[in-house]
Amino acid sequence: MAHHAHCGTAEIMGGLIVDAVRACNLPEGTFSLLIGQGRIVGQQLAKHPALRAIGFTGSRLGGRALMDTAAARPSPIPVYAEMSSVNPVVLLPGALAARGEGLATGMLGSCTLGVGQFCTQPGLLILERSAEAETFVARLSTLFAEAAEGVMLTSGIHHAYVNGLVARAAQKNVRVLAQAKTSGEPNRATPTLFATEAAVFLANDSLQEEIFGPSSLVVWCAHREERDRVVTALHGSLTATIHGTDDDLNKNKELVAQLEAIAGRLVINGFPTGVEVSHAIVHGGPYPSLSDGRSTSVGSNAIYRFTRLVCYQNFPDAQLPAELQNANPLGLSRLVNGSRSDAAL
Amino acid sequence: MAHHAHCGTAEIMGGLIVDAVRACNLPEGTFSLLIGQGRIVGQQLAKHPALRAIGFTGSRLGGRALMDTAAARPSPIPVYAEMSSVNPVVLLPGALAARGEGLATGMLGSCTLGVGQFCTQPGLLILERSAEAETFVARLSTLFAEAAEGVMLTSGIHHAYVNGLVARAAQKNVRVLAQAKTSGEPNRATPTLFATEAAVFLANDSLQEEIFGPSSLVVWCAHREERDRVVTALHGSLTATIHGTDDDLNKNKELVAQLEAIAGRLVINGFPTGVEVSHAIVHGGPYPSLSDGRSTSVGSNAIYRFTRLVCYQNFPDAQLPAELQNANPLGLSRLVNGSRSDAAL
Repeated sequence: MAHHAHCGTAEIMGGLIVDAVRACNLPEGTFSLLIGQGRIVGQQLAKHPALRAIGFTGSRLGGRALMDTAAARPSPIPVYAEMSSVNPVVLLPGALAARGEGLATGMLGSCTLGVGQFCTQPGLLILERSAEAETFVARLSTLFAEAAEGVMLTSGIHHAYVNGLVARAAQKNVRVLAQAKTSGEPNRATPTLFATEAAVFLANDSLQEEIFGPSSLVVWCAHREERDRVVTALHGSLTATIHGTDDDLNKNKELVAQLEAIAGRLVINGFPTGVEVSHAIVHGGPYPSLSDGRSTSVGSNAIYRFTRLVCYQNFPDAQLPAELQNANPLGLSRLVNGSRSDAAL
Repeated sequence: MAHHAHCGTAEIMGGLIVDAVRACNLPEGTFSLLIGQGRIVGQQLAKHPALRAIGFTGSRLGGRALMDTAAARPSPIPVYAEMSSVNPVVLLPGALAARGEGLATGMLGSCTLGVGQFCTQPGLLILERSAEAETFVARLSTLFAEAAEGVMLTSGIHHAYVNGLVARAAQKNVRVLAQAKTSGEPNRATPTLFATEAAVFLANDSLQEEIFGPSSLVVWCAHREERDRVVTALHGSLTATIHGTDDDLNKNKELVAQLEAIAGRLVINGFPTGVEVSHAIVHGGPYPSLSDGRSTSVGSNAIYRFTRLVCYQNFPDAQLPAELQNANPLGLSRLVNGSRSDAAL
């Protein structure tokens, strides 16, 4: 399905994929591109008996609708819907003391990269209150206030961003720390920084919702135990980040385990925006960042989304797939009686 | 959850697992055993926010109820429900000609093993009509008629078996080929063989439902094209079996691909009952044999049911799990920049 926001781009990309399918001698029809009303055509596709799996990137509403349809089929199928992610960042005291200024600059860059339209944009900054933390947030506020507005991808995304900002600003005990200036021209997003206290955050699930765009929410924790409560209450995200010195990290060893439970990619002393295609990458995490947190949409492991285990018992060698034949004609590394081997048998 | 049919056995097994948990120094509470009304307690468990995955073996009704509950949660979770499987067997002409007698004896044994209460019991026998096939089915009918009745695990299972037989016998154009004698004593299951034509089978989805017990359905195909229609219309099963000579197999190469699409374990010239715990085993298949056909409930790969991918980016070596530390302290075989290695880095 092409997204209605960029049908032309989708058509160009679709043509390239069809060319690649032919170049690889794969069957015609391996790839199809449909252009139409996403909800209507997508829902019809999701109900079709011949369909065996669904991959999707988009809104939480659209993703959940596909999940619900797939689960209600006579024969349910897997759905990989990438929906929303707040990508929490925990800033530890030592790091703030040692390099608060650089952290503020880096964080502004990560929050506003691509006008904040990265699915790994850091939308939640978690800190314990201290003099260094106050200095850092003050500096970050200044940078947000001075940041440039940016043109969003579509008017729909811009509309949702503005609505998200208005709704968040209206939440009880949530403050707007800084908002950049706007020219008032169409589709312009203004970087905006919010703040609240841990107790407010813990009592209001709407503060865990993603505002897609260049906005972030500072969550102030009075002490470490409160930070633990915030971190363990987080919903699923694609990424989770820690900034800390070696001393910080050694004093907060439980943080990694806490964040493993809620994110697919953990970053230490870096910024989550940007995804490298590699064997080790995981672009996926617990719900709602992904409908199926066991998998990734990027990297080598993504192929397992569309595979099933099949066992071949007592097959004559000639009837086996080449991958499993004794002579190992494809020269693969295989698990043979529990040991890796690329030899013929 | 202990099944109400064998709470005592469950309690003994549960005690052994708790002992093993302690012996391995795993945390108390790693394993819990609940005894109670399955539907009520199971549904409450399935809704609990702290629950992250469900494994289940039982009825299709019970499994589907768990799937629906898990999918409707605010945060949906994976469900691995093993529910029902007819385990189709395709008998090719050469094999029937070469060893029809032995096949009939073997098939009776596989159909009635454990009073037919194996989840891999062959409940569907698919043949093209020929003189050899007629001889085979006549012989199998004699064996079914002469087979001993058996005591089923519970009166509930026996009740469902009897109801299943009655319902199948009442289906239009389904014949009872043979039924063993019964003593009339409680919980006794009588081996029963049914037969129908491919066209009847294809038009009546209820003939794809499992009758849990020592019963099987012969599906007569007029020719190969009709057999293709039957095989490609099959619902998901744990296993699918082919009996054929090398010549049969070479002439019917599409059969393996057809059966790969509907089963997790393919057997050639063997019987599907019995499951070996090994690296290669797959005990799982497309819906309704399993709610999630990507996985297996037996063998090394079963552990992936309860895992998630997590990526560690820019971690200081000391903060990494031992499995990923440069020195490779656990001596594991790891994928390093795309190549397998058990060396330190």
